[in-house]
Amino acid sequence: MARNAHPEATRQRILDAARKLFAKHGYERTSIQDIINELGDLSKGAIYHHFPNKAAILDALTEADTAQVNAALPLDDDSLSGLQKIRHWMLATVANREHMLLLRDAFPLLNDPKMLSENLKYWRTTNASMFRQCIEDGIKDGSISTQYPREASELLALLSNYWLAPMFYPATAAELKHRVRCLLTMLAAIGLPLFDLDSPEVNTLAEGIALLGAEPEHRTEP
Amino acid sequence: MARNAHPEATRQRILDAARKLFAKHGYERTSIQDIINELGDLSKGAIYHHFPNKAAILDALTEADTAQVNAALPLDDDSLSGLQKIRHWMLATVANREHMLLLRDAFPLLNDPKMLSENLKYWRTTNASMFRQCIEDGIKDGSISTQYPREASELLALLSNYWLAPMFYPATAAELKHRVRCLLTMLAAIGLPLFDLDSPEVNTLAEGIALLGAEPEHRTEP
Repeated sequence: MARNAHPEATRQRILDAARKLFAKHGYERTSIQDIINELGDLSKGAIYHHFPNKAAILDALTEADTAQVNAALPLDDDSLSGLQKIRHWMLATVANREHMLLLRDAFPLLNDPKMLSENLKYWRTTNASMFRQCIEDGIKDGSISTQYPREASELLALLSNYWLAPMFYPATAAELKHRVRCLLTMLAAIGLPLFDLDSPEVNTLAEGIALLGAEPEHRTEP
Repeated sequence: MARNAHPEATRQRILDAARKLFAKHGYERTSIQDIINELGDLSKGAIYHHFPNKAAILDALTEADTAQVNAALPLDDDSLSGLQKIRHWMLATVANREHMLLLRDAFPLLNDPKMLSENLKYWRTTNASMFRQCIEDGIKDGSISTQYPREASELLALLSNYWLAPMFYPATAAELKHRVRCLLTMLAAIGLPLFDLDSPEVNTLAEGIALLGAEPEHRTEP
């Protein structure tokens, strides 16, 4: 008897079941046993064959999720200017409530120094490059005029992922709004006018980011 | 026979000898055996009793050094305005060549995720609080007028320690100068006008920070 003819399919089924349960009950309240029960036909051993622990499932989910969110970005949409691409990107990310809650649940993984160090590297390199592409597009199409394309890209990636995150810099919703305004003011000063300080987008961003600091209890329905 | 009546004194002797050798030959070219030879009367075992490895000696040195640099800060100098305190602090730090070279030698330790994670925490908390104190002083004495005292403190600590560092964000001396100008422009926009973009201090800062990225070979004399 073949052990498992479709390991990738099994892995994906585990992820799908976990995503459903995490979304419904929250990460903390979901156990590996719950995932087994949800799947119905897999043993605990089969799950541990794919993932060493529950945290690894969450990590794989957020990775897949980030890849999916990034793939949906309008980076290649020629109907948008470079500046509009960054605006859409930021708004689309925070508007994706399920993604933000998954990120929120994944944040405690960053207490692990190795995971944090890998994320910082991702923000310094890959993530900064994606912003850089939008900024270069914006410089070409005239929507952005900055002397600091590289610096703005690095700071967008670092500050939006790390400094805005209430897990690292604890903040109330009102404090997050102030922090977003501060970031927008600084970016405008170096030639990247993303949103007006009084625009509704400031609230959208702050409220989306606040989800990252929300207590898991607030969303769980028993 | 007493094993060691003065363990603290021995520890300090090891640190003093190591500092001398690191400064003279560089961290990489100094071995534990060199330190033993320099001290003359200590066994390898005696050194390992105090420090598990050479990296731990460097770590203890930079910690002591940072404490010393911070203690020399003009935080309590009432003859300076809050804004001047921050200016003096930044210039005094980069002007201390031995300190910068020690920091440079210590930077590879931050490849260790645990050390990096502890440093990030220090920058988020203790270091940000020190900048905050200067900013609050400046608001009281009228030298600083900002709506973003907390944000400016957090960003000064994060960006000056992490983003400006060529180990994390590789840069030539010219690129560092541009990066410093970018930071000064952003800080001015949120009410913290540290230095004019055309002032000689921009060069002083950039050249000091460039030491952090200098190859150890460039300072070593055989």
